[in-house]
Amino acid sequence: MTISMYQASAPRFANMLKNLSTLLDKGQAYAEARKVDPQVLISARLYPDMFPLSRQVQIACDNAKGAVARLAGVEMPKHEDGEQSFAELKARIAKTIDFLASFRPEQIDGSEEKDIVLKLGGREVKFKGMQYLLGYAQPNFYFHVTTAYDILRHNGVELAKRDYIGNP
Amino acid sequence: MTISMYQASAPRFANMLKNLSTLLDKGQAYAEARKVDPQVLISARLYPDMFPLSRQVQIACDNAKGAVARLAGVEMPKHEDGEQSFAELKARIAKTIDFLASFRPEQIDGSEEKDIVLKLGGREVKFKGMQYLLGYAQPNFYFHVTTAYDILRHNGVELAKRDYIGNP
Repeated sequence: MTISMYQASAPRFANMLKNLSTLLDKGQAYAEARKVDPQVLISARLYPDMFPLSRQVQIACDNAKGAVARLAGVEMPKHEDGEQSFAELKARIAKTIDFLASFRPEQIDGSEEKDIVLKLGGREVKFKGMQYLLGYAQPNFYFHVTTAYDILRHNGVELAKRDYIGNP
Repeated sequence: MTISMYQASAPRFANMLKNLSTLLDKGQAYAEARKVDPQVLISARLYPDMFPLSRQVQIACDNAKGAVARLAGVEMPKHEDGEQSFAELKARIAKTIDFLASFRPEQIDGSEEKDIVLKLGGREVKFKGMQYLLGYAQPNFYFHVTTAYDILRHNGVELAKRDYIGNP
């Protein structure tokens, strides 16, 4: 046996997005307990030209959505980036998880050699399916989930690594 | 075709560690250009009880080393955590990449169902090989590489996402 493209994508992204939702719960609870405006956390950044927490969550969702849609060759739903509260960010995650759950393994399996073309910084970058998933989509996805964690931790929210890992 | 356990581990970890080494180069260059003591960056943290840059690099290396060693069922080399400079951290990465490169695919392939037992927080946690790689080793590895990136960015080092992604 080996790892299928489905096994390495949809359920893994969904699992981490569930964990990301838990991280947001803890951020929200922290804001409530300290009587901090939730916007302070939602708009927090690690550096002025880095994205804020809200955008990290949106991009993590889009990385997951885009990866499975591209591998399966289906249209990806458009999710507007208007989220302004923890509840809205959690709803964004929930609809992304629903989208991931709508895929059957056979829609994604066999896409290892599929041509994937991305527009990055105005130019076209070509990948093969497995290279795209393992070398681009996964590292990007984990980058944004981790940076969301780091932003919350940096602001004092008590998170532990097990919140990020969840139930593997 | 499908993804082999080897394809999803050793070469992917090695590729990202090479990128991590480039991030450290940029950190070192920044310290030199600004006449900042490199220790300021090496000991920088995003929060008092988070690990500093040096430890993020060490753990990323150990995540990669431990994953391939456990999946292959070989003894993992002991790497002491004494690094105190960018050069030493880069050497730690280089010897980890050498260890990863020492594996032949057939040593790791077929480990999808292999029992992997970790001691986490004093208790034994049991995984199957694929679950361990996709649900634990990979997310942890990317967590520490990303947090190293975030620490450097938070301190003003000019990094771009393409430095983190490298050549997928």
